[in-house]
Amino acid sequence: MIRIGVIGHGYWGPNLVRNFAEQPDARVTRVCDRRPERLAPVERRYPGVGVTTDPVALITAPDVDAVAIATPVAHHLELAMAALREGKHVLVEKPIAATSDEASRLIDEAQRRGLVLMVDHTFVYTSAVQKMRELAQTGELGEIYYYDSVRINLGLFQHDVNVLWDLAVHDLSIMDFVLQRQPAVVSATGLAHVPGQPANIAYMTMFFDGGLIAHVHANWLAPVKVRRTLLGGSRRMIVFDDLEASEKIKVYDRGISVDRSPENVYQMLVGYRTGDMWAPQLAVKEALSVEAAHFLDCITAGTTPETGGDAGFRVVRLLEAATDSMTNQGRPVEIHGAVAL
Amino acid sequence: MIRIGVIGHGYWGPNLVRNFAEQPDARVTRVCDRRPERLAPVERRYPGVGVTTDPVALITAPDVDAVAIATPVAHHLELAMAALREGKHVLVEKPIAATSDEASRLIDEAQRRGLVLMVDHTFVYTSAVQKMRELAQTGELGEIYYYDSVRINLGLFQHDVNVLWDLAVHDLSIMDFVLQRQPAVVSATGLAHVPGQPANIAYMTMFFDGGLIAHVHANWLAPVKVRRTLLGGSRRMIVFDDLEASEKIKVYDRGISVDRSPENVYQMLVGYRTGDMWAPQLAVKEALSVEAAHFLDCITAGTTPETGGDAGFRVVRLLEAATDSMTNQGRPVEIHGAVAL
Amino acid sequence: MIRIGVIGHGYWGPNLVRNFAEQPDARVTRVCDRRPERLAPVERRYPGVGVTTDPVALITAPDVDAVAIATPVAHHLELAMAALREGKHVLVEKPIAATSDEASRLIDEAQRRGLVLMVDHTFVYTSAVQKMRELAQTGELGEIYYYDSVRINLGLFQHDVNVLWDLAVHDLSIMDFVLQRQPAVVSATGLAHVPGQPANIAYMTMFFDGGLIAHVHANWLAPVKVRRTLLGGSRRMIVFDDLEASEKIKVYDRGISVDRSPENVYQMLVGYRTGDMWAPQLAVKEALSVEAAHFLDCITAGTTPETGGDAGFRVVRLLEAATDSMTNQGRPVEIHGAVAL
Amino acid sequence: MIRIGVIGHGYWGPNLVRNFAEQPDARVTRVCDRRPERLAPVERRYPGVGVTTDPVALITAPDVDAVAIATPVAHHLELAMAALREGKHVLVEKPIAATSDEASRLIDEAQRRGLVLMVDHTFVYTSAVQKMRELAQTGELGEIYYYDSVRINLGLFQHDVNVLWDLAVHDLSIMDFVLQRQPAVVSATGLAHVPGQPANIAYMTMFFDGGLIAHVHANWLAPVKVRRTLLGGSRRMIVFDDLEASEKIKVYDRGISVDRSPENVYQMLVGYRTGDMWAPQLAVKEALSVEAAHFLDCITAGTTPETGGDAGFRVVRLLEAATDSMTNQGRPVEIHGAVAL
Repeated sequence: MIRIGVIGHGYWGPNLVRNFAEQPDARVTRVCDRRPERLAPVERRYPGVGVTTDPVALITAPDVDAVAIATPVAHHLELAMAALREGKHVLVEKPIAATSDEASRLIDEAQRRGLVLMVDHTFVYTSAVQKMRELAQTGELGEIYYYDSVRINLGLFQHDVNVLWDLAVHDLSIMDFVLQRQPAVVSATGLAHVPGQPANIAYMTMFFDGGLIAHVHANWLAPVKVRRTLLGGSRRMIVFDDLEASEKIKVYDRGISVDRSPENVYQMLVGYRTGDMWAPQLAVKEALSVEAAHFLDCITAGTTPETGGDAGFRVVRLLEAATDSMTNQGRPVEIHGAVAL
Repeated sequence: MIRIGVIGHGYWGPNLVRNFAEQPDARVTRVCDRRPERLAPVERRYPGVGVTTDPVALITAPDVDAVAIATPVAHHLELAMAALREGKHVLVEKPIAATSDEASRLIDEAQRRGLVLMVDHTFVYTSAVQKMRELAQTGELGEIYYYDSVRINLGLFQHDVNVLWDLAVHDLSIMDFVLQRQPAVVSATGLAHVPGQPANIAYMTMFFDGGLIAHVHANWLAPVKVRRTLLGGSRRMIVFDDLEASEKIKVYDRGISVDRSPENVYQMLVGYRTGDMWAPQLAVKEALSVEAAHFLDCITAGTTPETGGDAGFRVVRLLEAATDSMTNQGRPVEIHGAVAL
Repeated sequence: MIRIGVIGHGYWGPNLVRNFAEQPDARVTRVCDRRPERLAPVERRYPGVGVTTDPVALITAPDVDAVAIATPVAHHLELAMAALREGKHVLVEKPIAATSDEASRLIDEAQRRGLVLMVDHTFVYTSAVQKMRELAQTGELGEIYYYDSVRINLGLFQHDVNVLWDLAVHDLSIMDFVLQRQPAVVSATGLAHVPGQPANIAYMTMFFDGGLIAHVHANWLAPVKVRRTLLGGSRRMIVFDDLEASEKIKVYDRGISVDRSPENVYQMLVGYRTGDMWAPQLAVKEALSVEAAHFLDCITAGTTPETGGDAGFRVVRLLEAATDSMTNQGRPVEIHGAVAL
Repeated sequence: MIRIGVIGHGYWGPNLVRNFAEQPDARVTRVCDRRPERLAPVERRYPGVGVTTDPVALITAPDVDAVAIATPVAHHLELAMAALREGKHVLVEKPIAATSDEASRLIDEAQRRGLVLMVDHTFVYTSAVQKMRELAQTGELGEIYYYDSVRINLGLFQHDVNVLWDLAVHDLSIMDFVLQRQPAVVSATGLAHVPGQPANIAYMTMFFDGGLIAHVHANWLAPVKVRRTLLGGSRRMIVFDDLEASEKIKVYDRGISVDRSPENVYQMLVGYRTGDMWAPQLAVKEALSVEAAHFLDCITAGTTPETGGDAGFRVVRLLEAATDSMTNQGRPVEIHGAVAL
């Protein structure tokens, strides 16, 4: 029985509390929020859970084995570090930290102490993304050619981070999991329509070694909501539309075949292939529940997290590079140490 | 009665022939194609039309007042220049020429001789794009914030130009017409999945002076066909989906309002507004027919073309800049002389 | 402060408990279910609420002013009648009773005792249906020509009632509210694909006096989920698609105009009109919360329920007639006393 | 080389002329229309074709081997009979005749003379319908449970026939071909919103022997165009949406399985099955071209037409029964001689 403390009970925290409360092998023992009015619903719904406005009290409590952190990103380093230093396992909201350097420090600390450090890349635990990964990694798609994602809607303008840190972070975490490869160069463009504020519309291209390119369009100022990802391969291509109720993943037997035989050395032949479409049935499970169970399993069985600190680091490093490139209207920025952590 | 000669009778030429043949004030007198087998259907369908495999014969024929050119872009300069020098008005397929320098030379020649030089930016003559322009230019949308277009499908890989010259050219011509403004800086990224060939997937960002940004995604290797443009303004936003049968244009009363009053000088307030959606009824007319009539009107009444040589020049200049930026993974390229021609 | 007792805590009961619990002027004091295991979550979530497996105990409890009944329809008469006889106001799940005769008896009892009897026609309290009613009743649509609804999906086969009682009941309650008119004749057809069971696919036509026709298609065995209603008028027509996330109601300026002028007496002229489409912004409120507040208002302020016992009666009477017609392959069945109750 | 004469050059006739003109084994020799102005375009486009306003002249012309009839249905009997009596093969527009009795007479005449009599049920020759038939007849769908079709739009009100004869005729011809079974009983309802005119909205249920039911909704007064057919089987179900550009046919691995084993004699068990969806690639061919080739093949090789006079008869018989039932608000009408012709 793992005893969980949750810090931050705003928008996302209640989901963490509910999902950990429903795990047979866990118990939520404490919840912390600096705003007392955010704790009232906890007391009403979960009479046995201790509440506090002091995160240190939660972190140091003897009946807390693991800490889930759902605060603004500015506090991730401080809170996660304090928890690790108390010997507590940590699940932290995405992005894992405000900088890749902060992420590195958390990874080091967790590694040194043999603790689980996991980042809440929730989408990775959906049936749709698991299916995409399976199709990509088993070769069903052939050679992967591109990854293209649009994540736009009329969304809250944030004052501390640009739209990539809010929306593209989802795509980068999905991409990291599905492709199992890391970009070498990033070029990003964007604009802030409210002067003095972070960019609310942004475009981000990533170049990989080998013939693979990725792109994300993130926008807080779109009249319609779009959540659509294309994953193009030499054999098959996927359209992942997260707003589709029942057919989120469609697999198309379409593409081109390039004839590189010696006879055609002087003329590259491209053949077109169109074929069936197939929408696999996906399991209906709440992703956060799957993730909570996985976090517990990592603690008790020593499993390596699907979304460990290293995944969090890689995503933040891309966001940093994109933000950098964006201030220079798309000037490319190299990702150092792309392959190894 | 304007007598029209059409050069090039491959994919698009027959549409030019048919649409000019249906104009009450025009007559197609001659059609040229280098491939005799492409002329057979002309003779069958239009017994009175003279056919030839020699473009010079067509251009110099006394019964030709205006020449419509639908050949590969490599021949545009030579053929259009020859026609202008013979005193013939010219309508040329998009893109107007292979380089902006070539476009300039054509513009100069037409101007010097007082002839009509028009480029076939067909989309400009659709009811949907005319409606977008009207909404943008009458202030219905408020201040224009962004223009975002996706034009992708499983399309023929071309060997001489990259995908921007084939697909984005439509978006750039629409944008030029709707916004009536020109970008100052271009950043583009892309990739060729067939080695040694032009890029088949590309992303292109354009920065304008003032808070306006534009982006185009063009892709020959997509499993699904998408033709969707977002036009975001401070008061209203448009979604233009060209694949919608009956509601191509949707206007959303959605957006943000920024409070810049003095009291709020220390805190920028963003208000969110959601409201009705409205899909205006659009006239059902073939765009090329509207365009053909407009070309004739420019010749007879001296009207300035909606898509004159200058529009063709501006579009080609953007394609050049994007192709340049693309070879440098997004490095921004300035557009010189952005405001005036 | 109205004290509410809820009988039945299966699929729908928890929604009643939650929505009444959130009303400022109400308190849920007691919950009853015959299955003790269904009461455990109540005790966990609402520590102050008394639970019981005995409905009589709940009905007769002095701290219960009104009873909400969410049991199978077979128990509606007995429980609602018992509650009314104890002087308690009643909100009963749809359909109000198993027969129109039972519904009549409940109406009489409530009337005699001056108590509120309301049926939970939830859809009536959605913003979409309220908007349809407004457009229909203010003359925006012109003369109403037809009402057509499709409500199909792969749904649970029920053993006691046919698919009309499970699915069409929603459409009939919406129709009753939107049209404010009652059919004179019903013809229904259907089939049971599992021998010995009630029909799982059914079609139901309703004829009104004057030129109005209505039709409902209900189906438990459809591969896709459809929830779409067409409401056709002489001036405008509505498409209500309940599965659309943000544009549930679309109003079309389309239709025909019939020229009945004397000169055209020998030839009826039909003019076609196509025009804009408009999707009004709808308030985002949980229908059951609106309904709960309305029920409380009926009790305290004496307001007449939008969905009183009489609406419940009219819907059940139609279901009876349709079931009768269905056994005779569509033979029409007259509705007696269509206008008054 | 079969020489074709086409009678009727209004809306559909030009398609017949064009498709027969493109067949390698046929030649269109003559075209007839009572309105001389309808013949002008034939002379312009097809200089070698003889035109006439007199159908008898066409029918009796020695250079006509087969006659295609695309006139209003009122003339089908007279023209087709005259052609058969002249020893000409006949292809007639749907519906084959104004009454089933007329259809019978044509069938008899053709049979007696050993001539081909085919009805232009065009949809039968589309790839989508051919695929549906294949899936239904090879057992892929299991036992067929229902056929449900919606065919609605803002369409021209016709003055001589009700909406079933104009729209449902398509569904009935598809159904006849896909199911290879004939209904035993018909119940139909509908309404005319223009007084004195035929019904412009209609619903038609068909009962088959065995557990199969079919339904068609036809409507000339709908704000949106819908062309959607559901075909439900015990193993799989199909959604055929003719307005989908690229995925007209979707096959769902969804359904129920009924456990009829002896142990469950007292309780019927229904199991639910949800699974993948699959959209087969369909060939892109013009249906009328396939049909024209088939007609020629029937003449030259003696093949039995897929849509012979008997299919035309069966469809008309259903339309008659439905029209009859509709005048009695759904009263069921038996189809006599359902199995054999």
